[in-house]
This record gives sequence, C-alpha cells and structure tokens, in this order.
Amino acid sequence: MVLTNEIDVAQPMSSQQEFDLQVFLQAGKTEVEAALDRSLPVIYPEKIYESMRYSLLAGGKRLRPILCLATCEMMGGTREMAMPTACALEMVHTMSLIHDDLPAMDNDDYRRGRLTNHKVYGDDVAILAGDGLLAYAFEFIVLQTKNVPADRLLDVVMRLGRAVGAAGLVGGQVVDLECEGKSNVPIETLNFIHNHKTAALLEASVVCGGSIAGANADDTSRLSRYARNIGLAFQIIDDILDITASSEELGKTAGKDLAAQKTTYPSLLGLEESKRRATELLDAAKAELEPYGDRAMPLKAIADFIGSRNH
Amino acid sequence: MVLTNEIDVAQPMSSQQEFDLQVFLQAGKTEVEAALDRSLPVIYPEKIYESMRYSLLAGGKRLRPILCLATCEMMGGTREMAMPTACALEMVHTMSLIHDDLPAMDNDDYRRGRLTNHKVYGDDVAILAGDGLLAYAFEFIVLQTKNVPADRLLDVVMRLGRAVGAAGLVGGQVVDLECEGKSNVPIETLNFIHNHKTAALLEASVVCGGSIAGANADDTSRLSRYARNIGLAFQIIDDILDITASSEELGKTAGKDLAAQKTTYPSLLGLEESKRRATELLDAAKAELEPYGDRAMPLKAIADFIGSRNH
Repeated sequence: MVLTNEIDVAQPMSSQQEFDLQVFLQAGKTEVEAALDRSLPVIYPEKIYESMRYSLLAGGKRLRPILCLATCEMMGGTREMAMPTACALEMVHTMSLIHDDLPAMDNDDYRRGRLTNHKVYGDDVAILAGDGLLAYAFEFIVLQTKNVPADRLLDVVMRLGRAVGAAGLVGGQVVDLECEGKSNVPIETLNFIHNHKTAALLEASVVCGGSIAGANADDTSRLSRYARNIGLAFQIIDDILDITASSEELGKTAGKDLAAQKTTYPSLLGLEESKRRATELLDAAKAELEPYGDRAMPLKAIADFIGSRNH
Repeated sequence: MVLTNEIDVAQPMSSQQEFDLQVFLQAGKTEVEAALDRSLPVIYPEKIYESMRYSLLAGGKRLRPILCLATCEMMGGTREMAMPTACALEMVHTMSLIHDDLPAMDNDDYRRGRLTNHKVYGDDVAILAGDGLLAYAFEFIVLQTKNVPADRLLDVVMRLGRAVGAAGLVGGQVVDLECEGKSNVPIETLNFIHNHKTAALLEASVVCGGSIAGANADDTSRLSRYARNIGLAFQIIDDILDITASSEELGKTAGKDLAAQKTTYPSLLGLEESKRRATELLDAAKAELEPYGDRAMPLKAIADFIGSRNH
C-alpha cells in the first residue's frame, strides 16, 4: 500500500517521436527543483524547515509540476504564471509521501534510497513537516503567483484542496487501507483507489495549469479526462510490470503485489485484457488533446511514454 | 505539551458588562455548529468522513469561528460572508488537535471526555482525517463563500495557510517539542511557542474576518495586535490558573505544568508579574479596538472575559 505512486518516466523514448521528451523532462525537472529550492528558506525554528526541505528536495521526476507547466503553456499561458502552483503541487505530493511512510501507515524506512523523513527527524516532526508543507502550498500559491487573475487562482486553490482531501488522495488511501490483504477486491473499488490516490493529483496538476492560462469549461473537461486516463493507465501498467518485469528492469522489487496477495488489474482482468485497457485509456487521453495541435506535443509524448512501458 | 490549547470561555460573566457575552457566545456556537454539520456530509468512503466529523463536531467553544464572524460584522461585513471561513478555521483547529493527540505526539486517549480520534479510528485514519480536514478547509472557503471579492478571499487563503504552517502552529509546536522537559526555557522562547501555537490561529481568525469585510492595512494591523495580545494573555492566565486554581475549578487536572517540570510564565516571572503582564496585554488589546466604538463590544467583552479569569 502506498499513498501515491512514484511515476517513473526517466527511461529511453521510442525514436519515432519527433519531440524530445527526455530533454523536455530533464529541463523541467531542473527548473522546478531550482524553484523548490528557493521556495523554502531555512529560518528559525530550523528543524522543521530542514525536515520539510529534506523531503521536498529529495529528487523524483517532478512529473506533477512538469504537467502543470506544460498544460499552462499549451493553453497559452507562461511557465512563470504556473510555477508557484507547480511547486505547490510538489509540496502536496511530498506531504503525502512523508505521511504515507510513517510507522502508522506504510512504515517505510527508505524512499528513493534515502532514509524516510521520520527516520531522520522522528515521527512527531515528520507529521508536522507534512502538515507544514500542505499548509504552505496554499500560502505559496497566493504569495508568489504574479499576473494571474484572482478568480483563476481561487479555482486552483479549490482544485488543489479537493485533490488532496477525502474527495481525492485521502479518500483513495482510506479505501486502499480497507482493502489491504484482500485478493478479491472488485474492479470498481480498484478503480476508485487509483482514481483517487494517483489520478486526482495528476488531474489537478493538468487542470490547474489550464485554469491559470484561462481554460474554458470545455478545455477543462478535456484536460481532466486526459489526466485521469493517463493516471489510471499508468497504474494498470505498473501492475503489469510488477508481474512481467525483472526487479532489475523495474528499479524496485518485482512481484511485490503477488507476494502481498494484493488485488491488481492483471489479477482481476488477466494480463492481455489489462494491456488492452491501458492502451485504450492512453488513446482516449491523446484524443482529448486533438484541438490543441502541435502545442499538445509534450502532453501527447508523456502519454506515449507511459504506453511505451506496456510491452 | 499540547498542539493548541482549548480556550475555555464558557464561565459566568462579570455583571458590570452591559453586553451579554454568554448569550453572544452561545448563539455563535449554535450557528457555527449547524454550519459545520452541513459542511461535511458522509459519502463513500464513509469511514474517513465519519472520522473527520467525529472530531469536527466534538464540541468546544468554537472561539475561532466566533471571533471571525464577530470581526467581520464589526468591520461592516455580514456573518454570511464570513461563515465558510469561520468553518474552515475550525477545520484547521480540529486537524491540529487530531494530529496532536496521536501516539507519536501527545499520545492522549481522551479529549473533551471522549476517546480521541485515533483511539476510535486508528492512527492511520486519524492522520488522514487531519490531512483531509486541512485540505478541505481551503476547498470549502472557495466553494462556499458568496459575495466576497476574489482578492479578499485569496488574502484569507494566504493567512490561513501561514497560520497553520511552519510560520505558525507547526513552527510553535516544533519549538515546544524541543523544550519538552526543560524547566529553564527563556521567556523569548516561551513567547515564540505561544505566539505560534495559540496566537497565530487566533490572529488569522480575527484578521480574516476583517479581510472579508474589506479591512484596510491600518485596520488589519490593529486587528492583528488585538488578537496576538489576547492570545498571549490567555496563555499566561492559563499558566497562572494551573497553579492557583483547584482541579475542580479548572475542569481539568491542576498542577500539571509543575508536575511536568514545564517552563511557564509564573515559573519564569513569578505569579504577580505574570498577572500584571496579562492585564497589560488585555488593556493593549482593547485599546486597539477604540476606533470601532460600540461595534467592538463583542471583541472587547471577549478580552474582558479572558481577564476575568485572572483573579
């Protein structure tokens, strides 16, 4: 059981894509990490800021901020307009990882090869660091965003709050906890878990990027479907890889789901049907981007990339 | 060590006050609790909503929402304009209590005579319920507030985020954790703890109420000083009562601070000097309200009431 999955996209691209996704992702990561580093100076009381920074600056692909920036640009906004929201998305994501790793939850000692927050700072400070990052995300959006109308920013605040709360991440996590150790979870429940644990914050990342650029209701619906579809596809493919890939290929322990008797898409639908559904979701995701032509290249490439792991 | 103190104001008023604070507080509590009840319906997954409601609707004086509503009215706004923010303040306060009671923090089994959240729902769900309430507070302000300009609401979001994060509650709590078991904490550190653990959210309650009504920079400074002064005075008087009152008068165990070898205002300053400082802070708080005349009656009465415990 993980609160939110790390979405690993740093793998070789298929050569038929003209757009160089790897360069795009690497540049985005560098830009986002510089902004995150500036976002949180260490002041008194140092320990809490150090604890927050320890996890916020611990690496990862920064996919949520990158999706936010890319969508804002696609919809005619600038990266500058979206950067504070992009950072806030990563703060919220980091909060969910810190709290998820706690002994009361997953009890994980390591994440990305480093000790988890509570192993370094203690459970009490780790809980507070998560709370601090969640609260700061909202403050930061308001304080740092320039040249975006106030009503658009309020929409961002609302969507971010919803994506994290019981209608999003937290709700998905509670259902996941209830399903722990059950191997007969119905597909509707499995969809609920992943739509809330993973897809909701991806959706907020994409939709908030659009909102900042002034996306209308129709655009917002398209962006929302794009993000939910890639989120669910990613999760299905993650389940498939847990069975088909070696631990070496995966960069983490393979076969964990089977060993944990966890209900997965392949265990419910079989391997072939799971692959078919993932492909279907990614095709549907890309179809939503048709109206945006070449401007949609980054978002299309991200969908293709997720699919390229499905073999 | 508590994350935020419960501020108990439901005690008999001194008769020289014309304004009936008890009636005012009771009416406010009733109104706020009805709004809180409506704010959070139970839907799937029920467990998380039940856990959030269990603590959100567990009683208390609702002082933060009442201060927010009263300040908004004093500054020329309506209660309706401020009610979503008032509810959000209580959601945030409730989050801090749930997380504070966790075994990793205070490890309290009871609060207000009922089992604490994690004793009923488990540590994992309690952590998530706190996260859910914090996230929902921001969503709720945006979704439910009517007839307030967007830029004022953004100011509310920013102030609420700051009051909870490392620059507020969370920061105060971390310093308090560091001072645990120390009986020689300097007064500056004690002030820092209480200004952040207690006064910051009280300040946000008052200032956000003003902001919603369109308070200017000068009003905001006055409201801010009023709130910080009553917050610190309350804390000093709480420390005094821990020494001078019996457990029966106090409604909770007296002498806890002494037993815990905790640094308090009386232990640093002596009893008489502590009383003098509390009175000074309350006088300064009331002086900030001078420009608002009779409209300031509720806020003045709350300051007087806090002082009436100082005997």
